[in-house]
Formats: sequence, C-alpha cells, structure tokens
Amino acid sequence: MSYTAPLKDLLFNIEHLARIEEIAKLPGFEEAGLDTAQAVLEECAKFTQDVVAPLNVEGDRNPSSFKAGVVTTTPGFKDAFAQYAAGGWQGLQHPADFGGQGLPKTIGAACVEMLNSANLSFALCPLLTDGAIEALLTAGSDALKATFLEKLVSGEWTGTMNLTEPQAGSDLALVRSRAEPQPDGSYKVFGTKIFITYGEHDMADNIVHLVLARVAGAPEGVKGISLFVCPKFLVNEDGSPGARNDVHCVSIEHKMGIKASPTAVLQYGDHGGAVGYLVGEENRGLEYMFIMMNAARYAVGVQGIAVAERAYQQAVAYARERVQSRPVDGSVAGSAAIIHHPDVRRMLMTMRANVEGCRAMAAVAAAAYDAAHQHPDADARQQNQAFYEFLVPLVKGYSTEMSLEVTSLGVQVHGGMGFIEETGAAQHYRDAKILTIYEGTTAIQANDLVGRKTARDGGQTAKAIAAQVQKTEADLLAEGSADAKAVAQRLSAAREAFVDVVNFMASQSRAAPNAVYAGSVPYLMLAGNLVAGWQLGRSLLVASELAAKGQDVAFMQAKIATARFYAEHILSKAPGARDAIVEGADSVTALALDAF
Amino acid sequence: MSYTAPLKDLLFNIEHLARIEEIAKLPGFEEAGLDTAQAVLEECAKFTQDVVAPLNVEGDRNPSSFKAGVVTTTPGFKDAFAQYAAGGWQGLQHPADFGGQGLPKTIGAACVEMLNSANLSFALCPLLTDGAIEALLTAGSDALKATFLEKLVSGEWTGTMNLTEPQAGSDLALVRSRAEPQPDGSYKVFGTKIFITYGEHDMADNIVHLVLARVAGAPEGVKGISLFVCPKFLVNEDGSPGARNDVHCVSIEHKMGIKASPTAVLQYGDHGGAVGYLVGEENRGLEYMFIMMNAARYAVGVQGIAVAERAYQQAVAYARERVQSRPVDGSVAGSAAIIHHPDVRRMLMTMRANVEGCRAMAAVAAAAYDAAHQHPDADARQQNQAFYEFLVPLVKGYSTEMSLEVTSLGVQVHGGMGFIEETGAAQHYRDAKILTIYEGTTAIQANDLVGRKTARDGGQTAKAIAAQVQKTEADLLAEGSADAKAVAQRLSAAREAFVDVVNFMASQSRAAPNAVYAGSVPYLMLAGNLVAGWQLGRSLLVASELAAKGQDVAFMQAKIATARFYAEHILSKAPGARDAIVEGADSVTALALDAF
Repeated sequence: MSYTAPLKDLLFNIEHLARIEEIAKLPGFEEAGLDTAQAVLEECAKFTQDVVAPLNVEGDRNPSSFKAGVVTTTPGFKDAFAQYAAGGWQGLQHPADFGGQGLPKTIGAACVEMLNSANLSFALCPLLTDGAIEALLTAGSDALKATFLEKLVSGEWTGTMNLTEPQAGSDLALVRSRAEPQPDGSYKVFGTKIFITYGEHDMADNIVHLVLARVAGAPEGVKGISLFVCPKFLVNEDGSPGARNDVHCVSIEHKMGIKASPTAVLQYGDHGGAVGYLVGEENRGLEYMFIMMNAARYAVGVQGIAVAERAYQQAVAYARERVQSRPVDGSVAGSAAIIHHPDVRRMLMTMRANVEGCRAMAAVAAAAYDAAHQHPDADARQQNQAFYEFLVPLVKGYSTEMSLEVTSLGVQVHGGMGFIEETGAAQHYRDAKILTIYEGTTAIQANDLVGRKTARDGGQTAKAIAAQVQKTEADLLAEGSADAKAVAQRLSAAREAFVDVVNFMASQSRAAPNAVYAGSVPYLMLAGNLVAGWQLGRSLLVASELAAKGQDVAFMQAKIATARFYAEHILSKAPGARDAIVEGADSVTALALDAF
Repeated sequence: MSYTAPLKDLLFNIEHLARIEEIAKLPGFEEAGLDTAQAVLEECAKFTQDVVAPLNVEGDRNPSSFKAGVVTTTPGFKDAFAQYAAGGWQGLQHPADFGGQGLPKTIGAACVEMLNSANLSFALCPLLTDGAIEALLTAGSDALKATFLEKLVSGEWTGTMNLTEPQAGSDLALVRSRAEPQPDGSYKVFGTKIFITYGEHDMADNIVHLVLARVAGAPEGVKGISLFVCPKFLVNEDGSPGARNDVHCVSIEHKMGIKASPTAVLQYGDHGGAVGYLVGEENRGLEYMFIMMNAARYAVGVQGIAVAERAYQQAVAYARERVQSRPVDGSVAGSAAIIHHPDVRRMLMTMRANVEGCRAMAAVAAAAYDAAHQHPDADARQQNQAFYEFLVPLVKGYSTEMSLEVTSLGVQVHGGMGFIEETGAAQHYRDAKILTIYEGTTAIQANDLVGRKTARDGGQTAKAIAAQVQKTEADLLAEGSADAKAVAQRLSAAREAFVDVVNFMASQSRAAPNAVYAGSVPYLMLAGNLVAGWQLGRSLLVASELAAKGQDVAFMQAKIATARFYAEHILSKAPGARDAIVEGADSVTALALDAF
C-alpha cells in the first residue's frame, strides 16, 4: 500500500501538453522551466511518499476525534503538517510578496496530485487554505492581507470555507447566518455552519475561517451575502494569536470516508458574537467565494485523479502478485498471476486510461490558468481564461465521477480481499465518494457548464475546443499509424457527438430548460470524455515522435497503447451519450411526480 | 429509512412477464396461481417491512462480533430469524416432503427480493441455507437427507458453503483441504476455509457446512474435489445436535459492508479431524457445488435488485423532502423540493429504470427455471433450461453491477448528507460492493456466459433470445405509440449490437481467446442491458393494453414512462459497447506487462 509518484507521466504532461517552456516565457514565471518543474516534483514525491502516504491507512483506522470542543487529529498528522509547512509546500503557488514561491499552477497542480494520492484527508487542509489565500489576495484589504496572508502562506495557520448551513447546501440563497456592523468597523457574526472541513483541529496555531453571512438589511437571495474573516483566535498587534473568538466546534461528522479529515459543525456567536472582518465590499460575498470555489473545484478534480492513481497502483501490485487460474491463451502452463487474465487487464487499462486522460486534461487546464493570469497579450489572456473556465467543471465533474469507477474497479481487482478493510482498497472507494459531492456536486458543475460556459456564449468556447480537436484528428491521420488512425476515428465520432450536444444546449436552454438540464450531467461527462481523449490523442503524437527518436521507448509505447485503449473503450461511449441527451431528454421528466 | 415492498411491480411481473397462470398449469404447482402469489407476497411484505427492515441500520452500527470462537450476531437478529423460521419462510421453495411449501421460484424469488431489500446481511443466512438444501436434495444420500433436510428447511439449522481457501478463490483447482476415509464410511476433514458467510453464529442450534476437500489420491485440479457435509454439532440418533465437531471459527473479517453478516475463517481438523459425510460420489464435488452456486448466483443477482430498490426508495423520500434551489423551468416560484430539478429526476429515473429492468429479467428467469423443472414436455424443459442458464450470469452479473451505480446515485441524490453515515444511504453503497464479487465475480459470470453459454452452442441460445427480442420490437411497432416506437428503435439497435457480439464470441473463442475474454464483461453487460430492456419493452405492451382498459392507469403510465427512459438512456449504450468489444479487443492486452 505504498505510493510511488508517477513522475514520468506528470513531467510528460508538463513538458509536452502544458508546454512549460512556453509558460516560462511569461512574465513572473521566468524561473519556472522544465528543470525547476522536475526538481520541485522530485522533492514533492519524496515528501509525499515518505511522510504523508504512510499516514493514509492510519487516518482511516484512527480518524480525527472530538471531545468537548477539541478536535484531535490522527497521530502523525500534526507532525507531518509541520514538515509540510517547513518545506514551504503551502506557498508553492502563492506570491513571493507573502513568502510564497510564485510557481505556476502547471507545477503546483502536479504537487497537489501527489499530496492527494498520498493522503486525501491530509491534503484537504492545505487545499482549503489555498482557497482562503486566494480569496484574501483577490478581495482582502491591505490590513487583512498583512494580518493573515503570511501566516497562511507559511502554513503556520490554516484556512477554511464556511458556506453550508443545514438548510443551505447547493442553494446559497438560503444562507441565514448574519453579521452585525460594530462601531470599530468590524462585525459580529452569528449562525451555524456545517460540513466545515478542518473547521477545528490541532495542526496549526490559528484557523482562519472565511464565512458567508448576511448584513442586516441586505437584499434577499445570493445578492445579499457578504464574506467575512473570523479567525479562531483574534490576532494581537504583534501578529500573534490572542483572545479566543466566539466560534466553536460543537461536533464533527461520522463519515463514510476521508475520516481523518474533521468535518465540523461550527457555532458562531453563541457568546455575544464572533468578531468578523468584512472581505471586500458588503453583498459581494458570493463573487469572492467563487474565487475560492473555482480554485477548490479544480483541486477537487485533481483529488479524483489522485485517489484513482493510488487505487490503480494498488490494483496493479495485487494483480502481479495474486496467482489464480490458467490464462485463457495457454501462455502460462499452470495458474498464473491474475494480471495475465484479459478481464483483469481490461480493468487495469480502464483505470490507467482514465487516470492518464484526466491528468492530461488537468495539465492543460493548469497551463491555461497560468497564461490567463500572466500572458502579456490581453486576447491571449481572455482566450486562455475562457478555455480554463470551460475546463474547470470538466476537471471537477468528470475526474471525480471517473474516480468512482476507478476505485470500484480497484476493489474488484482484489476480489474478496477488496471487501476486507485491512486490504486498503475499500478505503479509496469510500474516500472517493465525497469528491462528486463537495465543492459543488456533479450536477452543480454541469449547471455551470451548461449555463455560464456554454449557453452564455452560444457555444462559442465549446466549438473552439471542437475545432482544436479536429486539428488533432488531422494530425493523427497524418501520422498514419494504425494506433493514430484508430484514435482519430473515435475522436472524430466523439467530437461530432459533442458538437451536436453543444448546439442542443445553446439553442434550447431558454426554450426547453428542463430538456437541457436533464442532459446536463451527461453533457459534462461527454465533454470531459472528449477533452481527456483529445489530450491522450495529442500525447500519442508526441510519444510516437519521441519513440521514433529512441527516447524512453517503453514509456512512449505505453502512452500510445493507453491512448488507443482510451479511444476504443471510453471515447466510444460518446455517440450513445449524444443520443440519450438530444433524443431522450423528454423521458427524463415524463414520469409523474407522485409516481416515484 | 423504512422499506415498503414494491408489491405492485413484483405482482405485475409475476402475472404478466413470468405468467404465473401458465406456471400454475405445471404439475406440482397447481396451487401456485396469482391469488397464492399475492397472498404470499403480502404476508412476506409485512414480515420483511416490520421485523427485518428495522434491523438493517442496527446491523451496520452493531455488527456481528467474535470472541474466543463465539460469534454474537447483531441484537435482534436471533429473534427475527426465529420468526423467519416459524413463519415457514425458509421452506418456501423447498419440497413438501421435507416440510417445505413447494412453491415455484417465480414466487419465491419475489420473497427473496423483499427479504434482501429489508436487510442484505440478514438475508444471507437463508440464502446460503437454500444452497445447502439444494445440494443435499440433488446429490445427498437418503440418510443425509433424512438427517439434515427437515432441520434446514424448517430453519431450525442453517447451512453454509465452504469453497474458498486463502490460495483458492476463483480458482477452485487450488483447493488443498483434505479428507481421509474412515472405516465407518465417514471422513475426517482437515484444512482452512475463509470467507465463510454465517460460518459461525448464534441464530440456530446447528450449522451444516458443505465443504470442498480432496480425498487422498484424488486427481489434481477440479476433477479431484469432493463435497462433504460437516455439521458444527454431530447429530444424535434422535436427530438432536450432539458432540461438537472439529470445525472451529478462528476469526471473522472486518468488512466494508454487510457487516452484520459474519464472514468466518473456519479451521477444520485441528483436534484430530472434523467428521464429514461424503455427498454423492468422490471427485464430483465441483459438479454438486455448482448446483448450490447456481441457486446462489441467481439469488445474489436478486440481492443487487433488492439493495438498489432500497436505495431508490430512500433517495425518492429525500428528494421529496429536501428543499433547495428554484426549478429551472420556473414552475415553482421559490426554492423547491429537489425532485423538481431535472438532474435529480435523471438520477431517480436511472435508479428506477435499472431496478425495474433487472427485476423483470429476474422474473422471467425464475419462470424459466420453474418450467425447466416441472414442464411435462422434454423439449420445453430443455428450452427453458437453456434460457435460464443463459440468464443466470446476467441476473448475477448485470444486476449487481447495476446496484453499484444505483447505490452510488442514491448517495449522490443526498448530497453531503449522503456521505454522513447517520443518513443511511452510504450503507447501501458499502453493502452493494460485495455483490459483484462473491459467488463468482462479474468476470467469472462473464467467463461462464462466453464459454458455457455462448461459444459451446455456437451462439444458438443467444440468437434464439435475439429472435424473441425482434418479435417484441415488431409488437411495439404495431402498437404504434410514440413511446412504443422509441423503445422499439433502441431495442433494435441494441439487439443488432448483441448479435454482432455473439457472432464475435462464438467465432473467435478458440482462435483469439484473449480478444474474446477481453470483451467478456462488456458482453455480459450488453446482454443484461438488452434482456432487461426487452422485458421492459414487453411490460410496456402489457401496460399500454391495461391502461387502455382503465386498469390502474397511473401505475401503467409509470411503467410505460420507465420503459422509455430505460430504452433512451440505458439501452442506448449498447452500440458503443459493441464497438469496444468487437473493434477494440486488441487494445485491452496491448500494453506490455511490465509497463503497468
């Protein structure tokens, strides 16, 4: 159950798909070439493999516990987090002004994957802290930045996102927590927040809560929500933690997975009001929160890839070692390791191809994010931003749904042993299920994809992507190998299916909203499938060229075989999905409500 | 989290798909008409809803425990099992000669579904007992029958299946347990068996283990395996339990799900040898074991349907109650129950259609089983037997794989609450995962489907089914409604895809075994999809006719809407599956073994 970081694949993507050398030409990223990427990834691999990965099983068996307001994390977590902070990992992607290293997302995202493969529960704490940093950087006053950012970037303190309330989950319009302005410019915050990841713990000296609440007299709905910082300990003049704030953990949840990560119910203001500081302007909280959410959504997508990778590695190890039955082709005389059986190969290839496809998609999304922020040309920034924003719901939605299938196959490869908790395969299956839910369910991602990312621009961004896919198809046909042609064929069918669906979404979203949203998740899955398959098509082209030059031939051949498997076994689902979405929309809502 | 037995749907299938009135014409089943079916199902519904279902959550929170050789089951289980036995439920399908009620499987299977929906863990004990009864009925000597059958049929004692050993899971050729003949005609059995469901418990006075072992000098491999009865307590002359036999539980497993069901490691012969009685002849154990296995495989398929039904009911209840966000079509002014959102409807319809499709498939399989056993005409018996045998791997494989998707959607409908154990949705997700593994993994079912059920007769049985599907397509086209035509269209495409794959399987199984077995599970899924969709097509025809007569119109309309949804959203996957199987076979095994 050890973990080996997939450095070759991560670096292949960084070099050839995300094109790190282009990113290193952007102002601010001059130091972030391939050598830097390699050095950082290798260091991160060591840390995650040696320090964080061994705590994964321990976290499941000995989860965070709650007693009288105090949360005690899994033994080893506190020390590992101190090493994480000391290694400067929290600041990897954050500005040097606040003590960070200012590296591009293209490099940072690879490190996020490794940390999450090592330990999903552990990695959630830094993930949420990243979101808090992002929100303060974008919308925080200079005073708030000065008070909180360095401590967060250094990993001395950690951050949280407080959105959900018992009645307000996906629907933030229903948020009821309230904030009362005080004469000194601060606010007093009152309310109950649930599902707060690392809302209370013992790994840092302070916890910086970012909290949605309504100021008295604010408009109803999402336009009346403001964002506040409520630290667990108020901060003294000298920057040290001072008086305890009136925010208290009253319980933590008993969950199916990611058990080491404490999920807190937080009570604000039961003893006079929690001191909060407004972030940005009143009533613009949702906008700021979306900054955190978008960073977090991408990161949760990477969590899906990460847990799938871990499940894949474990399944491969078991399949090599477990001896059972004779191969059907007679290639081994007696019973053989089950990796010799075609169906086990099918399962492992399905796992591998899904992981590599989603990883490649996440890599190009990260590169677009970097260019959208740092490119000197405004048009290039805008194009990259549109591409990135289109990809965020796919990275989040598709990669996490993929992780459910992959972790399920991980259990299946183990047979009966997979169902026994000691084996460890079941933990990945249990852990992964939260990923399609938190930071916006797959349906919420799909709403975003349909509404803001497809219908709003009449399908323009989607079709620009389709045009790029078509270009890759042409390149594959020109390359001319049987593998390339097979991939081109499936890519072409999937792209045509995608364009049909985009036209349906763009043209019908006002006229037939039920029909459009009935197909929203299948559309997301189709789009994610296409983009992942497309990136593997691009990978095949690179791999074929490099293999011809004799460069790491075995790795390149594996890349080609994986791309073809993906095309033939996963991309091939696209036309069926098109039919269901476009021709089957009405049957989704045909059953009378009282007939369920 | 209560359970309401889906009596209407079960009886619809029994009456219109399984055609109980035809079964009641078979010798031995004269009493088993629709009225009997209805009376039995209603009684079973009461018992399972009121007595067994409330123990489901309790079993998860307070599982079976092990201490010093003794297994204590969940509080309430022992009493519920006594009621189960007293109600005569164990004997429902077993011969009156041994105290059973001799009802057809068509009725019995519906009761098995209810018991499993109520409580998967609880229902496993009767399920294994059924298998033991079946094996003794078929191969046991009169003496063995006299000693054990009445006690098993009455539910006074329970049965187990002992196949697996640490090195022998799917591969029974590797069984090492051994049996030494004794002068009195009995044997002494030695060895370790693992994964023995209800291998030890406190719910019955005796446990009748059916055990695979090798007699000294037996041929190697599966042809040298014999089947033995080893009761926990030897049986006195008067039929009462006597001396403790040398079979002992040394531990039980810590599992991801079905926690209330004890999964035992049994040690045979550590104190001189466990007394065993040969069932049938030496070295024919595998053959007899398959009798138990086939009964058990069908029943495990029904478990998939059952847990999916329970997850569906819970998801519907939550979706009606949870208020969140405005409907996209503006049909409700403010926030509405989430059942109004098209994607929630899509999830619920996917759950519902899968459950109803698989339930319909299981119903016609049960009817075929009854006819195969009781039909006076030999040809009819043989045809029904072939049909039943073709369907067993589909009922087992497809229904259980379906249950993974459905229970996952069940969690998803609950959003964040689904991941919290108190909600109960997560239990179904954890419980279901064993179903694709035990009694033969999905791959083992698929091997059976490809080898014994398709290649052996050159695809004849498969094509006979395709011809029947085609007949249903014609009937649907003749019916002429938009719903019927839509179903016919998808059925036709799926049937053509199926025939292509059958031809591939039948023609290539010797020439290209790797290619064939690389597609075995996708073939099973395609075949299951087709047969389930076909049965819903038949259901649509019946429902349309009855609705026209004004009979239970709302139910009939729901049946029609569900059939169409199934066709458009699930059957529509079939052509893509065909492409992957037939055109993508080589890419499954293309990756070099050391490249994983």
